[in-house]
Amino acid sequence: MRDRLTIIKVGGNVVEEEASLKSLLKDFSRIAGNKILVHGGGKTATMLAERLGIESKKVDGRRITDAETLKIVTMVYAGLVNKNIVAGLQAFGNNAIGLTGADLDLIRAARRPVGEIDYGFVGDIKAVNYQALNELLTSGAIPVVAPITHDGHGQLLNTNADTIASELAMAMSYDFEVQLIFCLEKSGVLMNEADDNSRISEITPELFVQLKADGIVTGGMIPKLSDGFAALNRGVGVVVITNPAGIKDGLRGTRLVLA
Amino acid sequence: MRDRLTIIKVGGNVVEEEASLKSLLKDFSRIAGNKILVHGGGKTATMLAERLGIESKKVDGRRITDAETLKIVTMVYAGLVNKNIVAGLQAFGNNAIGLTGADLDLIRAARRPVGEIDYGFVGDIKAVNYQALNELLTSGAIPVVAPITHDGHGQLLNTNADTIASELAMAMSYDFEVQLIFCLEKSGVLMNEADDNSRISEITPELFVQLKADGIVTGGMIPKLSDGFAALNRGVGVVVITNPAGIKDGLRGTRLVLA
Repeated sequence: MRDRLTIIKVGGNVVEEEASLKSLLKDFSRIAGNKILVHGGGKTATMLAERLGIESKKVDGRRITDAETLKIVTMVYAGLVNKNIVAGLQAFGNNAIGLTGADLDLIRAARRPVGEIDYGFVGDIKAVNYQALNELLTSGAIPVVAPITHDGHGQLLNTNADTIASELAMAMSYDFEVQLIFCLEKSGVLMNEADDNSRISEITPELFVQLKADGIVTGGMIPKLSDGFAALNRGVGVVVITNPAGIKDGLRGTRLVLA
Repeated sequence: MRDRLTIIKVGGNVVEEEASLKSLLKDFSRIAGNKILVHGGGKTATMLAERLGIESKKVDGRRITDAETLKIVTMVYAGLVNKNIVAGLQAFGNNAIGLTGADLDLIRAARRPVGEIDYGFVGDIKAVNYQALNELLTSGAIPVVAPITHDGHGQLLNTNADTIASELAMAMSYDFEVQLIFCLEKSGVLMNEADDNSRISEITPELFVQLKADGIVTGGMIPKLSDGFAALNRGVGVVVITNPAGIKDGLRGTRLVLA
């Protein structure tokens, strides 16, 4: 039987406010077995850009990354957010190691081709170095992954953290029984965004189509669910969308299922 | 016989200007055997602080690190500078991994006690996790170390990069024949700062005392040489101060010797 590997992606206020981050790291540190934390940091990046007078441009929730913006996200994601998470996990006795896709050539990406929109220095993932991750996990390390990749020719690239979490989950599912958890502020996918009790317990691909058509699943949740279903289709065992409380409570949340 | 380990500390314009950095990384990538790169980034940090309207305070060349400044150095050292070096080395076929002292609990420090001066979030090194570095080197990885440490209780700390390089050299000298190279813009320690040909080829502890008294060795060069002599006294084989050209050219520069 394969060992279990838990991959948690955290973003939004969960990771960007000191109190909620500390509480999350405490819960994360108690998860037994192999684990990887993937984080965002978009709000902090937007705030820093504002202070520097650099305009943040987004199309469909995806950041346009010009050269100045790439510097900002590299500083915030790979520096500030990543290293505070690592130091926090170390304090809870977790042997964390902060990584981007450039470190150990972990995630190689290609700059997204310019179509209708030029996303700038945004990378689409081409390869995950699962051997290197495997070695780190075997040595007892806990990878903390910032959403920055590289092209192998010296160029850093900005890559969506949800996508990184799904791609890592898929790549690691050859060697591990992977559960992929998207951790956000809401308790899961909600029928009514204002009511945290309206959580949908299970979503099939058919229901996903329906929920999009009905305008219940919108914005950044659409690519998140698409990434999740892609992971299920490529051997990932469990995909759940939940909040920090749901992680403690036996993985309560919205579960994606293939049928 | 112990394997050789080359530890190079780079700072100043060498690491902060794109063209000189690329050239340095090319030379560094050609060094055979085990190697570690330790870098600074102070000028970029000062520039970012200026753009954000945060005053940079220094006493005797050492930065006073308040909470805002700690965020800036974490972003610049551990994010921007570190990850660009890592991506650059990967492009030259070196399997670099960027690290701070928090990652893998590599360098544990204690916040400097407040004496006449309160340095703020500045860390004095207490322990180096040489086993973790050893494992990384054994696996073929090339550590790239940013001058940020942690206290083991979740607090990141700013630590001088020269001191980190010396402490790593000392800790690794049990297992390796270590050569420690301080790489700067000048060709070594100069008798006349304006004349790059006035390099002193060897400095003993006695000559160091004399050069300080004569005002020839001043400012940040004093702790650098003190760190270098401390390293020699604790088993480091070779300590050289040089520039990128000196690294290529069979380690030409100023050599520290004990007698």
